[in-house]
Amino acid sequence: MKTTALIMAGGRGERFWPRSRMSLPKQFLSLTDDGRTMIQLTIDRISSIVDLEDVYIATNTSYKELVAEQLPGIPEENILCEPVGRNTAPCIALAAVHIAHKYEDAIMLVLPSDHLVHSVETFTQTLQDAVSVASTGSNLVTLGIPPAYAETGYGYIHYRQQSPLGKAYAVAQFVEKPNRETAEKYLAAGDYLWNSGMFIWKVSSILENMHTHMPELYNGIQVIREAIGTPRENAVLTETFPNLPSESIDYGIMEKASDIYIIPGNFGWDDVGSWLAMERIRQTDDNDNVIAGNVLPVNSKHCILESSGKLIAAVGLKDLIVIDTEDAILICDKEHSEDIKKVLAELRATKQDKYI
Amino acid sequence: MKTTALIMAGGRGERFWPRSRMSLPKQFLSLTDDGRTMIQLTIDRISSIVDLEDVYIATNTSYKELVAEQLPGIPEENILCEPVGRNTAPCIALAAVHIAHKYEDAIMLVLPSDHLVHSVETFTQTLQDAVSVASTGSNLVTLGIPPAYAETGYGYIHYRQQSPLGKAYAVAQFVEKPNRETAEKYLAAGDYLWNSGMFIWKVSSILENMHTHMPELYNGIQVIREAIGTPRENAVLTETFPNLPSESIDYGIMEKASDIYIIPGNFGWDDVGSWLAMERIRQTDDNDNVIAGNVLPVNSKHCILESSGKLIAAVGLKDLIVIDTEDAILICDKEHSEDIKKVLAELRATKQDKYI
Repeated sequence: MKTTALIMAGGRGERFWPRSRMSLPKQFLSLTDDGRTMIQLTIDRISSIVDLEDVYIATNTSYKELVAEQLPGIPEENILCEPVGRNTAPCIALAAVHIAHKYEDAIMLVLPSDHLVHSVETFTQTLQDAVSVASTGSNLVTLGIPPAYAETGYGYIHYRQQSPLGKAYAVAQFVEKPNRETAEKYLAAGDYLWNSGMFIWKVSSILENMHTHMPELYNGIQVIREAIGTPRENAVLTETFPNLPSESIDYGIMEKASDIYIIPGNFGWDDVGSWLAMERIRQTDDNDNVIAGNVLPVNSKHCILESSGKLIAAVGLKDLIVIDTEDAILICDKEHSEDIKKVLAELRATKQDKYI
Repeated sequence: MKTTALIMAGGRGERFWPRSRMSLPKQFLSLTDDGRTMIQLTIDRISSIVDLEDVYIATNTSYKELVAEQLPGIPEENILCEPVGRNTAPCIALAAVHIAHKYEDAIMLVLPSDHLVHSVETFTQTLQDAVSVASTGSNLVTLGIPPAYAETGYGYIHYRQQSPLGKAYAVAQFVEKPNRETAEKYLAAGDYLWNSGMFIWKVSSILENMHTHMPELYNGIQVIREAIGTPRENAVLTETFPNLPSESIDYGIMEKASDIYIIPGNFGWDDVGSWLAMERIRQTDDNDNVIAGNVLPVNSKHCILESSGKLIAAVGLKDLIVIDTEDAILICDKEHSEDIKKVLAELRATKQDKYI
């Protein structure tokens, strides 16, 4: 059976402001030392197991050109533009019917476009293990990340350690982002994994499950499916998609379906959730500074310093994030990195859209 | 007797980098809320007691155009360009012979071009008091500032509290920048004032004293004096000035002469010695931030934030100086403001002259 992939690339990545903007969100930025953008790295990573012509990108219309520019090998018809964002379940449904239109059935990898993986070899091996499990029956497989610490910003997945199916374990429960105390408990328990948002299944399996657990979505997507390849395709998508139930695949399917499996992924995963991730994924100097561009540090340490051209003289700084872009400069204490959202809220409130 | 003034405007003001540059030092910057530059404010301040045609500006050739631009009322021949900087004694000697060339004798106010004064009325009254004292005999008068705290960055002047001459007191001793302990002692003693670098005397008095205490300077300056108004003026200046002894007026004259008087100046003086002065001389917001230009502060306090156009989002900052200019951005912890010199040293060492 063919292996295909859906890369979800509709996110806004506000936490990487001012480099990420409405017009250029995180997945289209190069944040690593190698110069490749996040979405390019995502495609590079699976190139040994999925042909480019079988890679689908779900995004929105305003990013279609960016996708085409950054991923020239992807056929234009594989760039699926959601008229509006309706969360992950409709997005996955849309890709599923497109793949089903091309190949009656196929394996479908569902991957975020803005995460990083340290060992590509281990990652592809894990995906292949998942493909094996997903090829049987109507198993839905997800990848979980062994927690490194008691993170409260991720969902967790509780699994049964007994009688694995190949490398996969039966999922006991998907759980929402825990508080600190609960996260500590999960970490200590040893049978909880971080929810990575990566899924592997047959197109037929996910559609069957939608039929059962999300009939409204299933019926809506059939209307879209019937129009694929016809002159009405775009009109039907534009009319129908916004009415699909806005729901996550976790809540809509994974928490309700049976035959859910999880494979622990030991490939070094990073969701690159904020500027703080730079210290994990980029080289640092002798003072633990991450430096890019025209920066002159004097007695500064543990800083993230990015110039877009101007000389940045950083004097006596500690634990600061400095991001200079063409029209905006962020200077942010690391402990306040969540407050970048407040900057964006203020810019919206004062209608300074050009900076958003 | 005519009252004339010499404004000394040859300084580089490195501590205001990156706004001050070799090509635009501090005296030519507007650092206050009123939009006037430091040198313009200096001239404004004495306009009630000195005619513009009697104001002399000592600077160097590269700033001649800046002076002419910022002070259009000053006659071109009053802009005295030192071929090289030789400290304050030769600078004052040069102005003295120019004034002597115009008016046989005159009162001469000697003022820095980059200090601020809070009460112009009290300042001009103090200058007039000083003029009275300087008009008698060959008295040399200086203005001293009652110390507000035990500053270690200024020189001090010890004076005799008994038998004042008008508002002036006889100077007992000029003392160099003290250490902390000594500064505390001076502060407690009550008969020490900060050395403000402002002087008032007759041209004849200062030349007489140079004749006595700095004969080499006196003889050299006579050569220059004789050439004033002749076709050889510039050639003689260029040839002779660099050979004059490089000495401060404090060390060369004030520490050696008799008839030295000091008047305590209660006009609210500020030498605007570094970016830290901004909090004293500029308006602050509710969080004690000094803000100029396109700045969006979020949970930031006690900061100095200046944009030259780009949006600066300042998130969770405390006690930082952020100065954005066309080609360079300084981000500096307040406690490290002295390290700005290290930035300039590094720029020199790496031949990045365009930023200096």
